[in-house]
Amino acid sequence: MKKIGMFGYGTVGRGFFGLMQRNGDVVSKNAGVELEVCRVFARREFPGDPVEPFLTHRVEDLWEDDSIDIIVEVLAGVEPAYQWTKQALLAGKSVVTSNKAVVAAHGAELISIARQKGVSYLFEGSVGGAIPVLRTVTHGLISDHISEIWGILNGTTNYILTEMKDKGAAFDDVLKEAQRRGYAEADPTADVEGHDACRKLAILSSLAFGAMANYEEIHTEGISAITKEDIAYGKAMGCDIKLLASAKRTETGISALVAPSFVPKNHPLAAVQGVMNAVFIKGDMSGETMYYGPGAGEFPTASAVASDIVAAATGVETYPGLAVEDHLVVLPRQKRKTKVFYRILVSDVEEAKKTCNEVLDVVQFVALEGVAGEIGVISGAQEEGVLGEKTNLLSKGKGIRQILSRIRMEE
Amino acid sequence: MKKIGMFGYGTVGRGFFGLMQRNGDVVSKNAGVELEVCRVFARREFPGDPVEPFLTHRVEDLWEDDSIDIIVEVLAGVEPAYQWTKQALLAGKSVVTSNKAVVAAHGAELISIARQKGVSYLFEGSVGGAIPVLRTVTHGLISDHISEIWGILNGTTNYILTEMKDKGAAFDDVLKEAQRRGYAEADPTADVEGHDACRKLAILSSLAFGAMANYEEIHTEGISAITKEDIAYGKAMGCDIKLLASAKRTETGISALVAPSFVPKNHPLAAVQGVMNAVFIKGDMSGETMYYGPGAGEFPTASAVASDIVAAATGVETYPGLAVEDHLVVLPRQKRKTKVFYRILVSDVEEAKKTCNEVLDVVQFVALEGVAGEIGVISGAQEEGVLGEKTNLLSKGKGIRQILSRIRMEE
Repeated sequence: MKKIGMFGYGTVGRGFFGLMQRNGDVVSKNAGVELEVCRVFARREFPGDPVEPFLTHRVEDLWEDDSIDIIVEVLAGVEPAYQWTKQALLAGKSVVTSNKAVVAAHGAELISIARQKGVSYLFEGSVGGAIPVLRTVTHGLISDHISEIWGILNGTTNYILTEMKDKGAAFDDVLKEAQRRGYAEADPTADVEGHDACRKLAILSSLAFGAMANYEEIHTEGISAITKEDIAYGKAMGCDIKLLASAKRTETGISALVAPSFVPKNHPLAAVQGVMNAVFIKGDMSGETMYYGPGAGEFPTASAVASDIVAAATGVETYPGLAVEDHLVVLPRQKRKTKVFYRILVSDVEEAKKTCNEVLDVVQFVALEGVAGEIGVISGAQEEGVLGEKTNLLSKGKGIRQILSRIRMEE
Repeated sequence: MKKIGMFGYGTVGRGFFGLMQRNGDVVSKNAGVELEVCRVFARREFPGDPVEPFLTHRVEDLWEDDSIDIIVEVLAGVEPAYQWTKQALLAGKSVVTSNKAVVAAHGAELISIARQKGVSYLFEGSVGGAIPVLRTVTHGLISDHISEIWGILNGTTNYILTEMKDKGAAFDDVLKEAQRRGYAEADPTADVEGHDACRKLAILSSLAFGAMANYEEIHTEGISAITKEDIAYGKAMGCDIKLLASAKRTETGISALVAPSFVPKNHPLAAVQGVMNAVFIKGDMSGETMYYGPGAGEFPTASAVASDIVAAATGVETYPGLAVEDHLVVLPRQKRKTKVFYRILVSDVEEAKKTCNEVLDVVQFVALEGVAGEIGVISGAQEEGVLGEKTNLLSKGKGIRQILSRIRMEE
């Protein structure tokens, strides 16, 4: 019998508690050991909720209770989750979390403490929702030199982009609807500005490439500036817009980016709709593999947490392949080449096209039916380092009034 | 340090040996323990091959050598692989295999022996090539009641069907080319008749549903009767043909089938090309997730074997959630409903269509451009139990000379 404590009883917490109530027998059977939630810390009361008999408002109860083996940390944000996790690990408890903010900011230290104390610190629930992608990287593709990972790591933004495309609606309207339906938080910044995807990419990169990636060094752009006109241009070009996260290992470091990008409709990632996530992984032994599933939701995330609980209950795991003292060099993006779409407000179409041809390696001009006074233009691959410069040149060029959008394109 | 022995040095064996030579350091690092191949049984000599110093022609050397901890079984067929595996397990060695024939036929007994001896018997490499799908079912989706699995589990047939579609070529010609390129075996029966996919489906079902599935009870049809005309009808209907394997849990047993089927071009499985495999899994907690990757090939399969080696080297695993003494009831397919496409040789088109309308719940007639004397017809969902009967009725109907093909359709 292993006893489980919980820090927090929010969405994922309720999901995990509910999962153990409904499927606790399945978890115990597959683990080969009895598992039971015995104590839950939360600040407020939950009258009538099945968690009631297990509640405590004194957080120390969790690490002071010698009978507790594993603590599930399902709080939001770095503090106090980080401090409490540290306390729990130092008290010899294994900790399992879905809190990507803590892992991205303090993962190296917490893993080190877990290793010193001979307990587990695991965070499958922090990346990819229900998809067991961390376990795949650390246990499935264990013999690979992984060279590249890329995909869609944030369900909220993918839901918003899917709705904008399907309904031709504006970002703000879809965001409000998403908030109303619980798919986006009251403060949506972390999701819509790409910070959440960036943290997940850093965590995944660390495990895939074997050393710590600092999320603050990964260039990140969100989707809040994407307009319904951009989506319409996408339709005209046979493309959808997705918030892509990618990291590639080179001899000198990793090239990583989180940014919205046009992907062709026949691209496998274009098929990833709503809150779904998908991750491609390229290794020298396994080749190219892909993992797809719900990227959010109380039960999908809880199922990832449960898989770590079993790992912590049946052994000690702290990602042995990850050198927490080593840091991955995140390469500056200047030399990274990318194809780019510009949406341009023009004073004179022919003059504007002439300017585009002078400044860019124009692949194609795109027009929206019934829309005058602007043009779309696709530029061939250019270095990220000259992107800003070219955009600046364009905006001052003849026939051009304003650059309305600048969005990368996948090939 | 854990020492590894090998039964066999064929395609997967060479792949695994090569993997350990190239990436042994990665495997050891991620495992947190040194791993080394020290002895390889093979019948013939391999002069000049790096395996030479490790070779033995006396198979007993492997289970008699106390220094060997884990044996990789990468032989073909049930015998002698089954007997040798048993010997190895009884001698207290863990065994890891990619041999689906042995697992499907004797998995229950071998797992039981491993459990009794306190060693591991693992077979990630037997299903889905590089995709860590067994580990996903047993470790990732550990809290789920899995209700359904479906996908493409055989790379050879998927390669053949892809080539037939892309080149408009006949089955026999593509098969010959596949044999020449090493994608199909000299005796291709197990692959093209669906037996390989059937065994994999049984193994996957056993782990997903927690009791043994008998592969001999799963209705299986292969692709050797698929013609280039069938593929052409698919194109006309916006569909590709795939060899689908599926199993669904119901209250009374599992409904399972391996058969070629038309899938719409926008279906995610239609995007699975060449030797790639893909598996969808539906659970009550994780929702619908999908796993995709190379279904065959020496290194992809070897990478799956390596992941089991690490599991066996760092703990004891014998799929605790699998009740080897329990058997899944495989339901008769009579009540299973399926949409069907018929290709019919006619003596009179209008008479034939009338017959179709009398016998079938016709959804649509399909014509191939420039082809006379035959019709295609799609029938709405009918029970598998009446499929044969209706086909018989059709073949005797007015205006109809012969039923040339009868292929299921996914919706």
